[in-house]
Amino acid sequence: MVDIVHKIGIKGPLAKVYQALATVDGIAAWWTRDTTGSSQQGGTIDLRFLTPEGQEKGRMRMVVSALESNRRVAWRFIEGPEEWIGTEVSFDLTEVDGYTIVLFAHKNWKETVEFTYHCSMKWATFLLSLRELVENGQGKPSPYDMKIDNWN
Amino acid sequence: MVDIVHKIGIKGPLAKVYQALATVDGIAAWWTRDTTGSSQQGGTIDLRFLTPEGQEKGRMRMVVSALESNRRVAWRFIEGPEEWIGTEVSFDLTEVDGYTIVLFAHKNWKETVEFTYHCSMKWATFLLSLRELVENGQGKPSPYDMKIDNWN
Repeated sequence: MVDIVHKIGIKGPLAKVYQALATVDGIAAWWTRDTTGSSQQGGTIDLRFLTPEGQEKGRMRMVVSALESNRRVAWRFIEGPEEWIGTEVSFDLTEVDGYTIVLFAHKNWKETVEFTYHCSMKWATFLLSLRELVENGQGKPSPYDMKIDNWN
Repeated sequence: MVDIVHKIGIKGPLAKVYQALATVDGIAAWWTRDTTGSSQQGGTIDLRFLTPEGQEKGRMRMVVSALESNRRVAWRFIEGPEEWIGTEVSFDLTEVDGYTIVLFAHKNWKETVEFTYHCSMKWATFLLSLRELVENGQGKPSPYDMKIDNWN
C-alpha cells in the first residue's frame, strides 16, 4: 500500500476550513466547480472535471466516510480512475500556533505508478487552492486549477 | 518504508532542468541560497536554511549518489534532521509532449510522521520553484521560499 500525505497551515478559522471540506459548495470552491450530491455522512458526491469550454476530462464518485464536526472529513472513492477505486482521502484538522493545520492523506494506493506522482503534486496545488479560498476568499478549483504537467 | 513522490512538467529544455539539479549554483537558485560543496558524483554538498536576517534554522549534508547526464540526479542524506539520515532523493528526467518531465522521489523514510507530511508539501513548493527558475529565470529558494505551515 502506498500513501500520499501533505501538511498545510492556513491562517483562518478552523470552522471555515471544515466548511470548505464538509460541504458541496465548499468543495466546489477549491477542488472542482462541478461538484454535486449529498455531503452528509454516508452521502455520495459526484465530481466532474471539465475544460474551460465545458468538455468533460474526467469524473469521480465518492462516499463521505467520515464527518466529525471541526475535526475530520474523509471520502472513499467508488467510481473514477481505476487507481483511485477503494482509496480513501482524509483531512484531519487542529489549531496550532494561530494556524488551522490540515493533515491530508490519500491512502491505500495498490502501487506507486506515475499517476501517483502526478496526483501527489496535484493534491499539493489543490491544498494551496484551499488555503487561498480560506485566507483570501478565492480558490482555484478546476477548470481554473494550476496545471502541473502534460496530463493536467 | 515510506516514499514521497511528485511529478512536474516544465516548459523548458531538459538540459537546463538538469543543470539546475546537477550543479551547486543550480540548487542554490531553487532550493536554498546557502548551498556549497562539490556536485561531482560522490561529492558532498552542504545546505543551510537561514532566516532572511541570516540566522540558521537548519542544515543538511548530502552525497551526490547518482549523476547521469540529462537523465538522473540522486542525493543521499548523511547529516541533518534525524528522519532524513539514510533517505535518498532522486530526479528522473524525460522529454514528453514538449515538457521536461521530472519524476521526483524522496525514498526510504522509516515511518510516516508529521514531518513526512510537512516535507511532502514543502517538496511540492520547491518543485514549483524549480519550474519558475527554468521557465521564468527566477526561483524561490530559501529564505524566499513559500511558507506552508507553522514549521516553515
